[in-house]
Amino acid sequence: MQIGLQVGFIGLGQMGSGMARNLMKAGHTVTVFNRTPAKAEALVAEGARRAATVADACRGAAVVTMLAHDAAAEEVVFGAEGLLATLPKGAVHVSASTISVALSERLAAAHAAAGQLYLSAPVFGRPDVAAAGNLFVVAAGATAALDAAQPLLDAMGQKTFVVAQEPSRANLIKLSGNFLIACVIESLGEAMALVGKAGLDKTQYLELLTTTLFGAPVYKNYGRLLAEPGDAPVGFAAPLGLKDIKLALAAAEALEVPLPLASLLRDRFLTLLATGGADQDWSAIGRLAARDSGQP
Amino acid sequence: MQIGLQVGFIGLGQMGSGMARNLMKAGHTVTVFNRTPAKAEALVAEGARRAATVADACRGAAVVTMLAHDAAAEEVVFGAEGLLATLPKGAVHVSASTISVALSERLAAAHAAAGQLYLSAPVFGRPDVAAAGNLFVVAAGATAALDAAQPLLDAMGQKTFVVAQEPSRANLIKLSGNFLIACVIESLGEAMALVGKAGLDKTQYLELLTTTLFGAPVYKNYGRLLAEPGDAPVGFAAPLGLKDIKLALAAAEALEVPLPLASLLRDRFLTLLATGGADQDWSAIGRLAARDSGQP
Amino acid sequence: MQIGLQVGFIGLGQMGSGMARNLMKAGHTVTVFNRTPAKAEALVAEGARRAATVADACRGAAVVTMLAHDAAAEEVVFGAEGLLATLPKGAVHVSASTISVALSERLAAAHAAAGQLYLSAPVFGRPDVAAAGNLFVVAAGATAALDAAQPLLDAMGQKTFVVAQEPSRANLIKLSGNFLIACVIESLGEAMALVGKAGLDKTQYLELLTTTLFGAPVYKNYGRLLAEPGDAPVGFAAPLGLKDIKLALAAAEALEVPLPLASLLRDRFLTLLATGGADQDWSAIGRLAARDSGQP
Amino acid sequence: MQIGLQVGFIGLGQMGSGMARNLMKAGHTVTVFNRTPAKAEALVAEGARRAATVADACRGAAVVTMLAHDAAAEEVVFGAEGLLATLPKGAVHVSASTISVALSERLAAAHAAAGQLYLSAPVFGRPDVAAAGNLFVVAAGATAALDAAQPLLDAMGQKTFVVAQEPSRANLIKLSGNFLIACVIESLGEAMALVGKAGLDKTQYLELLTTTLFGAPVYKNYGRLLAEPGDAPVGFAAPLGLKDIKLALAAAEALEVPLPLASLLRDRFLTLLATGGADQDWSAIGRLAARDSGQP
Repeated sequence: MQIGLQVGFIGLGQMGSGMARNLMKAGHTVTVFNRTPAKAEALVAEGARRAATVADACRGAAVVTMLAHDAAAEEVVFGAEGLLATLPKGAVHVSASTISVALSERLAAAHAAAGQLYLSAPVFGRPDVAAAGNLFVVAAGATAALDAAQPLLDAMGQKTFVVAQEPSRANLIKLSGNFLIACVIESLGEAMALVGKAGLDKTQYLELLTTTLFGAPVYKNYGRLLAEPGDAPVGFAAPLGLKDIKLALAAAEALEVPLPLASLLRDRFLTLLATGGADQDWSAIGRLAARDSGQP
Repeated sequence: MQIGLQVGFIGLGQMGSGMARNLMKAGHTVTVFNRTPAKAEALVAEGARRAATVADACRGAAVVTMLAHDAAAEEVVFGAEGLLATLPKGAVHVSASTISVALSERLAAAHAAAGQLYLSAPVFGRPDVAAAGNLFVVAAGATAALDAAQPLLDAMGQKTFVVAQEPSRANLIKLSGNFLIACVIESLGEAMALVGKAGLDKTQYLELLTTTLFGAPVYKNYGRLLAEPGDAPVGFAAPLGLKDIKLALAAAEALEVPLPLASLLRDRFLTLLATGGADQDWSAIGRLAARDSGQP
Repeated sequence: MQIGLQVGFIGLGQMGSGMARNLMKAGHTVTVFNRTPAKAEALVAEGARRAATVADACRGAAVVTMLAHDAAAEEVVFGAEGLLATLPKGAVHVSASTISVALSERLAAAHAAAGQLYLSAPVFGRPDVAAAGNLFVVAAGATAALDAAQPLLDAMGQKTFVVAQEPSRANLIKLSGNFLIACVIESLGEAMALVGKAGLDKTQYLELLTTTLFGAPVYKNYGRLLAEPGDAPVGFAAPLGLKDIKLALAAAEALEVPLPLASLLRDRFLTLLATGGADQDWSAIGRLAARDSGQP
Repeated sequence: MQIGLQVGFIGLGQMGSGMARNLMKAGHTVTVFNRTPAKAEALVAEGARRAATVADACRGAAVVTMLAHDAAAEEVVFGAEGLLATLPKGAVHVSASTISVALSERLAAAHAAAGQLYLSAPVFGRPDVAAAGNLFVVAAGATAALDAAQPLLDAMGQKTFVVAQEPSRANLIKLSGNFLIACVIESLGEAMALVGKAGLDKTQYLELLTTTLFGAPVYKNYGRLLAEPGDAPVGFAAPLGLKDIKLALAAAEALEVPLPLASLLRDRFLTLLATGGADQDWSAIGRLAARDSGQP
C-alpha cells in the first residue's frame, strides 16, 4: 500500500491549485506556498499546510513547482532560502512549469551539484483538466528522480511519458507541443476567417471538421473558442502564449532550427498584445485573421 | 428496396477507381471513362461498362466526375460532346473533384441553364480510404440534386455533410480542409525538425503527441510519413498539393481574406517542386524544415 | 532631322496622359483612344486626334498601349476590331503596360503570326515622372521593333534599357522592380513603426536614412509618404499594387521560384483592401505594421 | 587649434582597427586594448600605446569601445577592473558597438551613477568605410557627453547624426538600419533568383536597377555581392547579422511592435548557419532564395 509523501507545492495559480488538490486527494501531505498568500486560502481550508516561505515547503521528500515563467522559477530555486539551499539531499524537485530548455539545464546541473534529485515534468492540459487530474505528464530525468516522483505524477495526471534521462528534453517536448497547439489555433482561425466571410456557419463548419479528419480535443476545444467567442474564460493568458512561443524559438535557435510557423505565431501574439488583447485567452490570436479580412 | 442506378464515372485515378468500384459493389450499373483507357481495364474486368467517349458515360441518370484539376474538369464538361452537351435534362452531375470555387460557380450556372442538376460533392480521404468506401463527402446543391445523388454518395462515403444550397460552398470547405491538413504537415515537420535535431526519437515523439492532444487520424497518418519516410507510397502527389493551396488562396483572394499560413505553404510546395520533389507525396513539404536546419 | 511619326495611343490614365503628351511635344502626330472618352478631352484640346475606336488608333506606323491590367490589354489587342485585326503589317505595337509575363508571351506570338512588330516596353516612374518625360523604359523585342519604337521611347523616357530579344523578359524585370519597390515600402513601414513607437520623429529618421545608406529616390519618395501621410495623392492605387505583386508571384510560380517577401506583400495588400484601403495609394501597406503595433 | 585627446580604444576587430587608426591620424593619443593582444600589433607599430588591461585604456578623457556583441561589452564595462570601475569621473565612454537597446539603457544608468559620461554612438559602414574615416555616426546622449566626444566622432566618421538625449535611441536606429540593409539583401536575393532562373544576366539586371530607382550604395554593394559571389571578402560575418536581427526583434518586442520581415530574416540566418554558412558574409542569406528555387 502506497503511503502518502510529505510534499511541498509552490505556485498556486489556475493550474497549480488543481494539481496540489489532487496530490491531497491521493493521500499525500501537502505544504503549499504561493507568493501571493491569498491564493493558498482555499487549499489550506481543505487541509493543506501553509508554508510561510519557500523553505517551509522544502522540508519533505519532494517539492513540486508550477510557476508562470523562468524568472519566477529562478527566484524560487536560486533565491536566498530557495530550493537549492533548503531542499534536503536526496529529495526530489519536480518541475512542472513550462520553462526554457536553458533554465532546465541549469536546474539539472545545480541540483546535481547540491546532491538533490531533479525531475523535469511539464504537463499538457488546461485548468479544468488539471482539476480533474487528467493532465498528461512529460517526464525526463534520472531513474531515481522518476521513481521518487512517480506517485505524485500519478496523482496529478492520467499518464506519464518518460522521454529521456536528460531533464531538459521534457521541456523541449512541452514547448514543441504548445507550439503545435498554437499552430492549430492559427490555422483554424484562418480557415474560419475564410468560410466565415463566405457566409458559412462557423459552428457547423467546426462540427464537420471535428467529426471527420480533425477529431482531436485540441481542435474541438480551440475551435469552439474561435467559433463562439465572447463568453470564454481565460484558461491560458495571451502573454503566457507569447512566452511559450518565444521559448520554443529560443530552444530552436540554440539548435539552429528555423521554425517559420513559430515566427509567424510570435508576430501574431505581439499584434494581439499591442492592440489590446493582453487580458485575453491565447486563442484570441486565432481571430486576427478575421480582423485582417475586415470581419468584425 | 434500392434499385441500382445507371451511372457514369469519369476519372479513374487512385481515388476514382476505388470510388467507382464501391458504386458497383452497391449495385449500381457503372459506365466508366478515363482519358487514358488502360486505367479502365481493371474495373471493366470486374463488370463495369466501358465508355469510349465522355458522351458514352452520360447516358444515365447520373454521372460522377473525379478529375485532377480544373483544366480536366473544364474539358470534360465544356468540351465538344462533353457533359453539358450530352447529359440528359434532369440528370445529375456529381462533381467530386477538388476544383476551384470559381469553376464550381461556372458549372452551377451552366448546368442550370442546360436543365441539368449539379451537386458539388468533394471528398476527404486518401486512396485507401476511397477504396474502403469510408470517404467523407461534403455536399452542396439543390435538394433535387442531393436527393438524386444520395444513393451514390452513400456508396462512396461513410458520411455526407450537406453544407449549403450553393454548390461552390462545398468546394470552399474542401479547399479549407486540405489547407488545414497541409498546416498539420508543416507544423509537424517543424516540430520534428526541432526534437529530431535534439536527438529525440521521432516515432516515440509522435506516439506521445497522438495519444494525448493530437489524436486525430491526420496527425497519425502524416506524422508517420514524416517520422519514417522512405517507403511511403505517393497517396497525393506534391503538384496536386500545390494546386489545392493555390485554389484556397484564390478563393480567399476573391473574398479578400489574407491567409499567411497558406502563403507559407505555397512557398514550401514551390521549393519542393523546384528542388526535385515533384514525384513525392505532398507530405514531403514537412521535411523541408529539417533540411533548412541542416539535417539529412 | 527626325520627322514625327503617326502614332496611336491607347489608355489615357494618369500615366498614359503624360506619356501621350510627351509624344506630341516631340513632334509626333498622336491619335488617342480611351474607353472613357472624357479622359481624352485635354489631349484633344492640345492638338491630339481623337480616335472613336481602337481601330481608329491603329492606322499609323505605331501604337502605344498603356493599360491598367491584363484584361484591358487583352480586350484591346484580341477584341473584335482590336490591334491584332487592324494594325498594318509591319507596324509596331509598343506595350508599355505592366502586364503578365504570360500575356506578353501570347502577344508576342500573336503579333508575329499577324506580321506585326511587338515591343514590350514597360516603364518605371509615377505620374509626375511620366509627365516630365523622365520615365525609365525597359525594352525587349526584335531589333526591328526596337528601331521602329526608339523615337517614341526617347520622347517618353529619359533612358531605355534594352534587356532581351524575348519581349516577356522586359515584363519580368518590370514586375521584379515593382516587387522591389513594394519591399522598400514594407521595410520602411516596419522600421518606422519601430522607431515611431519609441517616440522618435519619423521625418528626421527618414532624413538620416536617405542622406546615408538609403539615398535612392524610392526611399525618399515612399519614406515621405509614410512619414507624413494624409495629404498624399494616389499615384498608384492599392489594387494595382496587389495586381503587380500577383503577377510577380505568377511569373515566379511558372519558373518555380518561391518569393517569401512577395507572399508577405500579397497578404499585406489583401489586408489593406479588406480593411477599407482600396482607394489609397499602394504605399498604404507600409502603415499596416504601425497599425499592428497599436499605433493610430 | 584642436589639441589631441588622451583616448582609450577597446576592440580592435576589422572595424575597430580602422577607427582607432583614424583617431591617431587626427592627432589623438590612443591607447589600445584587445582581448587577443596580437590584434594590437599593427597599431602599436604605428605609434599607439599598448594597454595591458582594460583599466590601462581608461586613464584618459575618453574611451571608445567597438565590440562584437553584448556579452563582450558587458564584460568590458561591468567586469572587475572594467570601465565602470576605472574610468575617471567626468570622462566619457563612447560606445560605438552595435549592442542591444536594453544594454545601452543599463550602461546609461550605470555610468550616470558612477559620475561618468556616456555617449551611444553606433556607426554605419563596413570595414573599408571605417578605414577611410567615412562612417556615419548615430549619436545619442547628454550634451556634455556629445561635446566631449565630438572630436573623436569627427575623426572616425564623415558625419554625425545627433538623434536624442536618451542614449539607447541611437542603438535602436542603428539596429533598424541594419534591419533595412538585410531587407535589401533579401529582396535583391529574391529578385535575382527570379530573373536569374529566367536566364537573364544578374550583373546587367543590377546595373539597370542601380542606375534607375535603386541608386543607393547599399543596393550597389550588396547587389554586387549577390550577382558575383565567390571572391567576396567577409566584411560582416553571418553570425553577427543574426545577432543584429535578433537585437532588432528584441527591441521591437519590448515596444510590442511585430516585424514580420525581421522574423523572416531571422529564419534565413538560422538556415544559413545550420547549412554551413557560418563563415560567410551576412549577404549570403540573399542566396537562399536561389537555392530554394533549385539554382546552384
